[in-house]
Amino acid sequence: MDSLEEKIEVLQKISQELEPSFKERESLNEQVRAFANHFLENIETYPAYVEEDAVIEKLTFNSGKKTLKELLTNFNSEVVLKGIKPASGKHLGYVPGGGIYTAALGDFLASVTNEYAGMYYASPGAVTMENELLNWMKKIFNFPKEAVGNLTSGGSIANLIALTAARDKYQIKNDKIQKSVIYLSPQAHHCIHKALRIIGLEDIKVRLLELDEFSKINTAKLAKIIQEDLKNGLNPFMVIASAGTTDTGAIDPLSTIGEITKNFNLWYHIDAAYGGFFILTESKKKLFKGIELADSLVIDPHKGLFLPYGIGAVLIKDKKAVFHSHHYTADYMQDANTVAAQINPADVSPELTKHYRGLRMWLPLQIHGIEP
Amino acid sequence: MDSLEEKIEVLQKISQELEPSFKERESLNEQVRAFANHFLENIETYPAYVEEDAVIEKLTFNSGKKTLKELLTNFNSEVVLKGIKPASGKHLGYVPGGGIYTAALGDFLASVTNEYAGMYYASPGAVTMENELLNWMKKIFNFPKEAVGNLTSGGSIANLIALTAARDKYQIKNDKIQKSVIYLSPQAHHCIHKALRIIGLEDIKVRLLELDEFSKINTAKLAKIIQEDLKNGLNPFMVIASAGTTDTGAIDPLSTIGEITKNFNLWYHIDAAYGGFFILTESKKKLFKGIELADSLVIDPHKGLFLPYGIGAVLIKDKKAVFHSHHYTADYMQDANTVAAQINPADVSPELTKHYRGLRMWLPLQIHGIEP
Repeated sequence: MDSLEEKIEVLQKISQELEPSFKERESLNEQVRAFANHFLENIETYPAYVEEDAVIEKLTFNSGKKTLKELLTNFNSEVVLKGIKPASGKHLGYVPGGGIYTAALGDFLASVTNEYAGMYYASPGAVTMENELLNWMKKIFNFPKEAVGNLTSGGSIANLIALTAARDKYQIKNDKIQKSVIYLSPQAHHCIHKALRIIGLEDIKVRLLELDEFSKINTAKLAKIIQEDLKNGLNPFMVIASAGTTDTGAIDPLSTIGEITKNFNLWYHIDAAYGGFFILTESKKKLFKGIELADSLVIDPHKGLFLPYGIGAVLIKDKKAVFHSHHYTADYMQDANTVAAQINPADVSPELTKHYRGLRMWLPLQIHGIEP
Repeated sequence: MDSLEEKIEVLQKISQELEPSFKERESLNEQVRAFANHFLENIETYPAYVEEDAVIEKLTFNSGKKTLKELLTNFNSEVVLKGIKPASGKHLGYVPGGGIYTAALGDFLASVTNEYAGMYYASPGAVTMENELLNWMKKIFNFPKEAVGNLTSGGSIANLIALTAARDKYQIKNDKIQKSVIYLSPQAHHCIHKALRIIGLEDIKVRLLELDEFSKINTAKLAKIIQEDLKNGLNPFMVIASAGTTDTGAIDPLSTIGEITKNFNLWYHIDAAYGGFFILTESKKKLFKGIELADSLVIDPHKGLFLPYGIGAVLIKDKKAVFHSHHYTADYMQDANTVAAQINPADVSPELTKHYRGLRMWLPLQIHGIEP
C-alpha cells in the first residue's frame, strides 16, 4: 500500500489540471477570445431569430473529456446560431439585449478572483462597490441615501424583494391575507403575480384597475375603489404602478398615485424595470416626476443600461421592513460589526451566495461614463 | 435645427463607443488578461484574509470617464487585496471557493453572446445545456428523469424553490399555516429559516429535532414527535434533512428519514448544498444512501465543484407542485409549444431573466471530465 504522502502526491498531480499553467491559460484564452471576436464581427449578419431545436446530443455530456475546440464548435452551432440574437442590431423586439464588451470583461474578472459579495466582512470592496452602484441609483431616482437596495439577477427577484417588504411592513399574513387588497394595472408585468404566489399571497385580492386612453391607470377611479373596499371591511395595503409597461411603454400617473397612497396609508411600489433608466435622458426625465414618492422601486440595468442578462435592482426606503424576512436575526454579533459601515447584500435579498454582479455594471459605467 | 438624419448620425458616433473596435477590444482584453494572470500567479502569496475597510472614494463613481488601467488599480487595492481570498490555497474555512479558470471563460462568453436562458424559444441551446446539466445531477443522485430542476444563484434560492413547492403541494396557506409543522435539525442551514419567512411561513411551527452523538437527527424521536403532533390536531407536513451540515459536516440518516416521511405522507427535503457532490467519490458514495428518496434536493456546484460563486441547483420530483407558483399560467399557447421539448427555467424559478449560468458549469465539466 502507498503511504498517505505518496497518495497525496498522486492526487496533487491529477488535481493540477484544474489549475492550468500560464501557457495553458493563454491557449484557452486565445480560443475564447477568437470566438468572441468572430461573434462580434459577424453579429450584424446573423438573423435576429432562428426557430430551430437544439441537438441535445451536442450539448449533453458524459464523464469523458473534450477539447475546448470541440466544445466551442457545439456551442456555436447549437447555442449561438439558434433562437434569438439579443446582441444583434436586428433584434428590435423589447429593449436591446446586451453587447457591452466591458461587462463581459467584468464577469471574467469576477469569476477569476471569485470575490464573495454577500457579506461586507468577506469582501469589503465588492460589497462597497455594489452599494455605491445602488447609491448612484438612489441619486438619479431621488431616493434618500438611507434607503436600502440590492443588485438582483433581474426584475423578477427585485419585485419579489419589494413585495416581501411591503407584506412584512403591513403584516399581511395568515387569516389577514384573504381580506387584503392590492391595486394594479392589467398591464403590470406578470412577474408581479408570480412573486405574489411565491411569497404566500396567492389568495390576496388583486384589483385590476381601469386604464385611460393612454393605457395609464385611471386615478380618479383608484381612489374611489379603495374607499369602497375600506367601507366593505377589506384591507387595502398596496398600489403597484409601472414606469414603462412592457406592452405599451405607458408610465402611470406617478405623482397622483403617490398622493393617493399617502392619503390612504398604503405601500407604493413602482416597477420601472422596463422604463426606469430613461430618466437619464433630458427629454424624458420629466415623465418620471413622482417616482421619488415610491416606497419601493425596481429598475433593470440589464435593460436600460444594455448590460448582459442577469442584473436587476431594487430600492426600498424602509430598511426595517426589508430586514424582517431577509436579515438573519440570530447573527447579532457579526452584523453589529458591519451594519455601521455597509449594508450586507445578503440582508436585502433571498440570496446568500450569488454572482458578484456588481463588477459587470461598475466597469462599463466607469469606462463609458454616464454622459455622452 | 438639424434634420433627424443629422441628429441620428451624431448620436451614432457617440454610441459607437459602446461597440469598441477589434483593436480597442484587444487592448481592453489584454489589460484584463494581464490582471488575471498576475492574480493567479500570485494568489499563493496573498493572505487568506485581510480585515480592512474598503476606501469608498476609490469605488464610487461620478458621471465622468475613467481608464481601465485606473479602474483595475482601484479594483486591486480595494477589492482583491481586502477581505477573504477564497481562490487562495490558504483559505481553509468551509469549502474552497472557486478558481476554475474555464468557468471564468464561460462567464465571459455568456456575457458576450448574451443568450437568454430563461425560456426555450429564446435560446433552445442555452436552455438545453442547462437542462442537460440538471439531467446529469438527476443521474448521480438517482432522481427520476421526469423530475424538474433549476440552476439557481446559490443554495438559498434553491432551498426557497424547494420549500415553495412543498408548501404548494400541501396547500399550507392562510389559516392553515399556524397549525402546520416542519421538522429539522438545529444544524440546518439558516437559509432554510430565511426562506420560510420569505415564502410566507413565518408563523409555521418549526420543531428543532434532537441530535445523536454524531450531530445527526435522532430518528426514533422524530417518528414519536410527529405522532404526538398529529394527536394534538396539528398538521405535520415536511421533514428537512441535511446531507452535510455546514458546521459539522454531518449527514442525517437519509434512508430512515425517508421511510418516516413516506409513512406519514410528508414532503421530504434534503439540503445537500454543502456535502452533495461528495457522492462522486468512491469512498463517500455510500454515505448518501437514501438521498434518492427525497422529494426535493439542493446541491451547490459553487461548493463541491469549485465553481465561482453564483451557481446552485435544485431537483424536485413533483413538477406540478413546482409549477403552481412559478409557472406563468396565463401564457398557455407559447408554453404548449415548448413543454414537450424542454422545461423552461423560468417555470421552475422566481427568476425570469437571469445570468446564463449554465455555461460556467458546462465548460469546465466537459473540459476536465468527471473522472480523474
